[in-house]
Amino acid sequence: MKAAVLSPVAWRTPPRHYGPWEQVTSNIAEGLVKLGVDVTLFATGDSITSGTLASVCEKGYEEDRTQDAKVLECLHISNLMDRADDFDIIHNNFDFLPLTYSGLIKTPVITTIHGFSSQRIIPVYKKYNHIGYYVSISNSDRSAELDYLATVYNGLDTRDFVFNDNPEDYLLYFGRIHPDKGTAEAIEIAKKSKRKLLIAGIVQDEGYFKEKIEPQFSDQIEYIGSAGPDKRNALLGNALALLHPINFNEPFGLSVAEAMLCGTPVIAFNKGSMPELIKDNETGFLVNNIDEAVNAVERLKDLKREDCYNWATAQFSCDKMVSDYLKLYQQILGR
Amino acid sequence: MKAAVLSPVAWRTPPRHYGPWEQVTSNIAEGLVKLGVDVTLFATGDSITSGTLASVCEKGYEEDRTQDAKVLECLHISNLMDRADDFDIIHNNFDFLPLTYSGLIKTPVITTIHGFSSQRIIPVYKKYNHIGYYVSISNSDRSAELDYLATVYNGLDTRDFVFNDNPEDYLLYFGRIHPDKGTAEAIEIAKKSKRKLLIAGIVQDEGYFKEKIEPQFSDQIEYIGSAGPDKRNALLGNALALLHPINFNEPFGLSVAEAMLCGTPVIAFNKGSMPELIKDNETGFLVNNIDEAVNAVERLKDLKREDCYNWATAQFSCDKMVSDYLKLYQQILGR
Repeated sequence: MKAAVLSPVAWRTPPRHYGPWEQVTSNIAEGLVKLGVDVTLFATGDSITSGTLASVCEKGYEEDRTQDAKVLECLHISNLMDRADDFDIIHNNFDFLPLTYSGLIKTPVITTIHGFSSQRIIPVYKKYNHIGYYVSISNSDRSAELDYLATVYNGLDTRDFVFNDNPEDYLLYFGRIHPDKGTAEAIEIAKKSKRKLLIAGIVQDEGYFKEKIEPQFSDQIEYIGSAGPDKRNALLGNALALLHPINFNEPFGLSVAEAMLCGTPVIAFNKGSMPELIKDNETGFLVNNIDEAVNAVERLKDLKREDCYNWATAQFSCDKMVSDYLKLYQQILGR
Repeated sequence: MKAAVLSPVAWRTPPRHYGPWEQVTSNIAEGLVKLGVDVTLFATGDSITSGTLASVCEKGYEEDRTQDAKVLECLHISNLMDRADDFDIIHNNFDFLPLTYSGLIKTPVITTIHGFSSQRIIPVYKKYNHIGYYVSISNSDRSAELDYLATVYNGLDTRDFVFNDNPEDYLLYFGRIHPDKGTAEAIEIAKKSKRKLLIAGIVQDEGYFKEKIEPQFSDQIEYIGSAGPDKRNALLGNALALLHPINFNEPFGLSVAEAMLCGTPVIAFNKGSMPELIKDNETGFLVNNIDEAVNAVERLKDLKREDCYNWATAQFSCDKMVSDYLKLYQQILGR
């Protein structure tokens, strides 16, 4: 099977630091190559793949700001579309713009909707609903106006995470410092539980940080800045639990899956994709408010960390994701 | 002949106030209908045409800011491209994005390059150079990196302008108040010539206006604000000459053509498209500096205003423009 995998061109694929869509796209492309698919990755010229690389620009527009994003995007997309006949299937990881070329080619296009940046982009998805094969990254992230072929959860490289059955005695907050993510709520849960809390993440909302978060730092509530991939594994694996008291319908919680891959259960507010990511009372607790979360902390001892690890490995691994996508390709191609 | 004429969707076609690309596109579409072409105008839903209107949005994204420009653009372009087979020819007046669909359809696409917003968009034009039929709006506005089919000057509706052989005794500056347009130079020319100067136009560079222009206002140098279509004709027609001492390579000077359509000669700095617009020593003077311009003011009496009118009518009318485009369509279609 010959597959064209279309990545964004904001960042390198895989990204050097930030670039979540480029990361997942890289995971898909590399996983497909391992399964014997003939993959051409359409990405920036400095991208790395074990398949064939096709590019129209050396660097992403976020990494070389002298470039015009709109120009790069349309040259990049048309570079694939002009060669559509070379492929059995096209996997679009690039949002809505490629869809508007898909009525002009014969090759089927499967589109992973990695997120809706705005309700204003839905009309494009609606227009191509009849020919688009849409994949959601969680059941909760679906638009009621669209038809979907399947949900495929983001897959992580399980080798990046080590199971730890002997955690230390702290709770962990891991994510952007932002009201959506519930940093202040995590602090309140830790205080009421009389547990130590480590907070790791970039400050995304400076006002929120200064007003609600920073004044609470103490021996008990400790901010350790942003934790890169090197520190991430130890930080997650040594935590008693990850606190994830989100205030929005998160389409997919990467840190939730990562924590469980280390054996660490998650206490999350029951919103968005959380009921899909967490097996309630087995790999964590789905709660509705701070008091329920405090109660859940007391019940952590009832959970087996091995259950967290096994669940996450089965659900959120690259292998699982890639296998799911390959099945969808085969389904579309009638094989 | 069935022609699809693609307009931008920033403003209505024709525009209510501002919207130069939409204005020229409207002139093309309406002129073609008169010549018996079966025209479908792709534009906003509130657009007005004697052909057939095709649209995906009621209002332009500049007139209804709740809309996403990128979404509107790609839905609008693909609305035409999906129906490409219905047309003998597609006339693109929408910049570079439609080109990136043109390799996927069979219908030839002729593109008027109304201007290069940036050198960064040239790679798109280069990519499609081999299949694109590019038209420049003046010979001076051509990129050396591209091949062109022809130059077609913007055409004006000559009925909007009245020939006046008995002007009053003032010079006119007509255009945006901006260093590029040479407002300060026009004032200096008028002062040295000891002539009255009327200045009409919107203030585009506030600092320049406050520092260099406003302090010079007097009985001799008079600012009359922005002059709409209703005042334009009298203002241009009654002027002894239009002063156009530009400091940039203007791709096409609309006010230059408009002045001559009223019989008013133009004294312009010899840059950009000026040698194409003005017949030196017949419909105005091409000069290189302020002193030469002052000298030219003295020589205005040597020019016949009728020559200005006749030249402009022959060169810059809608009828001429549309006839030129129709010949190009026929040439492309091998008829």
